[in-house]
Amino acid sequence: MQEVQFITLLWLIGIIAEAMTGALCAGRKQMDLFGVVIVGCATAIGGGTLRDMLLGNYPLIWIENVHYLLAIAFASLLTVIIAPVMRYLSKLFLAIDALGLAVFSIVGAQKTLLLGFSPVVAVVMGVVTGVFGGVIRDILCNQVPLIFKKELYALVSLLTALLYILLKMYGVTEWVNLAISLTFGFGLRMLAIRYHWGMPKFDYQYNQDGQIH
Amino acid sequence: MQEVQFITLLWLIGIIAEAMTGALCAGRKQMDLFGVVIVGCATAIGGGTLRDMLLGNYPLIWIENVHYLLAIAFASLLTVIIAPVMRYLSKLFLAIDALGLAVFSIVGAQKTLLLGFSPVVAVVMGVVTGVFGGVIRDILCNQVPLIFKKELYALVSLLTALLYILLKMYGVTEWVNLAISLTFGFGLRMLAIRYHWGMPKFDYQYNQDGQIH
Amino acid sequence: MQEVQFITLLWLIGIIAEAMTGALCAGRKQMDLFGVVIVGCATAIGGGTLRDMLLGNYPLIWIENVHYLLAIAFASLLTVIIAPVMRYLSKLFLAIDALGLAVFSIVGAQKTLLLGFSPVVAVVMGVVTGVFGGVIRDILCNQVPLIFKKELYALVSLLTALLYILLKMYGVTEWVNLAISLTFGFGLRMLAIRYHWGMPKFDYQYNQDGQIH
Repeated sequence: MQEVQFITLLWLIGIIAEAMTGALCAGRKQMDLFGVVIVGCATAIGGGTLRDMLLGNYPLIWIENVHYLLAIAFASLLTVIIAPVMRYLSKLFLAIDALGLAVFSIVGAQKTLLLGFSPVVAVVMGVVTGVFGGVIRDILCNQVPLIFKKELYALVSLLTALLYILLKMYGVTEWVNLAISLTFGFGLRMLAIRYHWGMPKFDYQYNQDGQIH
Repeated sequence: MQEVQFITLLWLIGIIAEAMTGALCAGRKQMDLFGVVIVGCATAIGGGTLRDMLLGNYPLIWIENVHYLLAIAFASLLTVIIAPVMRYLSKLFLAIDALGLAVFSIVGAQKTLLLGFSPVVAVVMGVVTGVFGGVIRDILCNQVPLIFKKELYALVSLLTALLYILLKMYGVTEWVNLAISLTFGFGLRMLAIRYHWGMPKFDYQYNQDGQIH
Repeated sequence: MQEVQFITLLWLIGIIAEAMTGALCAGRKQMDLFGVVIVGCATAIGGGTLRDMLLGNYPLIWIENVHYLLAIAFASLLTVIIAPVMRYLSKLFLAIDALGLAVFSIVGAQKTLLLGFSPVVAVVMGVVTGVFGGVIRDILCNQVPLIFKKELYALVSLLTALLYILLKMYGVTEWVNLAISLTFGFGLRMLAIRYHWGMPKFDYQYNQDGQIH
């Protein structure tokens, strides 16, 4: 089916983009090349892997088809080489990453529905797929996960997964649904970056003495 | 059965209390509302989720019954609203959290026994259920897990699970066993907070040069 | 079979050594004795546990045979007692740890092949088994994983797993294969420590403003 090939292509672009964000994060922590590859891989496949482990859905995609992992490792190493020109490509890169976020959220929801889980679980797994790669990256790089502080990153993931599921429930054709959900998710993320939209922050500085933990 | 309803009610109180500790921790790191919800959820269900993933026990409770997750998300957001009055409620909150610790440890051990694992595994899983929600919370908030440094937190979990299992093995009625184990766990934790009881610390400052890693 | 007993003995030495690195790391963060035990256990069994969870291979070894966990907990506590003399044993300790790294990588690859997965997956799982115990230790201790920055640690794991698998594919007897792979992995790691061999580092300090995440 054409739409399967289309979404797979976008998903491949997404995992490559995620691998590159992982590699760059490793570079900021001055890791060696092996660290770069591991953080790149964990970022790219971490969200989907956590989703499948939570659902008990085995074998994992990258274990069944190990070529994905090799492509991700290669993309991570390539990032080291092209890092000097990344600054001139940062806008392109943000766009690719936004596309990846939308694709991951949709694919995560889609796969969960296919496994027979409820729409609410599918929304949750869309978010897990969309954002937990970045969370794992930040844990490996020993920093507070950026997606918990950033311009609508996780909310874009949730709304995109929700929109996809709603349109599917209302019988919208897969092709049309993908086009609408992707455009929505990608567009919302780009607008959020452009205008610095963000969720309200919760700043709680009382009781630092560890009494309440 | 009455005791099932009773322990479920206490378990619900426990996950709500855990969600609130997660939300407050997110607030200390100035996360946005989505970060608050994710850290709240991970804290509340993280211990039980890790237990079931280690045991290979699928489907996970919160995937089978997604209402728990919605209640936890709601409690996390509510925490943001009532945060200003939390300082006046800190003693009540500590008591609820102590209750949650005891309930989690007992429920973790109970479920593991029901799945047919040995008593020793059940004690380990009682501790995993009791304390790993807090460990995951502290990892997401990028700090050394407090439970590794705090007043008898993890030891209370272990002793409570152990007591519950021993009483069960000696044929004590479930009702009586729950009453004794809960009172013991709750009481020990409150005493530990009151009198600042703690385990001996291991302070090893030699060889910081990374030779031994 | 003799070689099974031999590799099991080495594996036991490996998990004890890993538990000790975990306990020492906990000591550097001034954790209490319970924290020491948990970090020790997570370091010793974390890599193998993650491997089996990724492969969906249940029940986990330390749940099926809980004696391993008790031995690891004991080794972690013992570390606290013998810590004052550790400085005089640091070279012995490094050697034991290097042996553990080689054994873990081989055992991880071996088990994965036995489960019927492809050689490439077996190499990946060799590395997961060899290095992720240390990664989990460093996450629990809230520091950037040392193995991403250290003398050929992860590369030794990969090459050792690869060598073992290649020799196995070329029909080399298990005994001979183990002897060669172990000597290679152990020797390479010791040489890397001795001569401070390391992978090239990726140092990327541009764009710290969080635009690219």
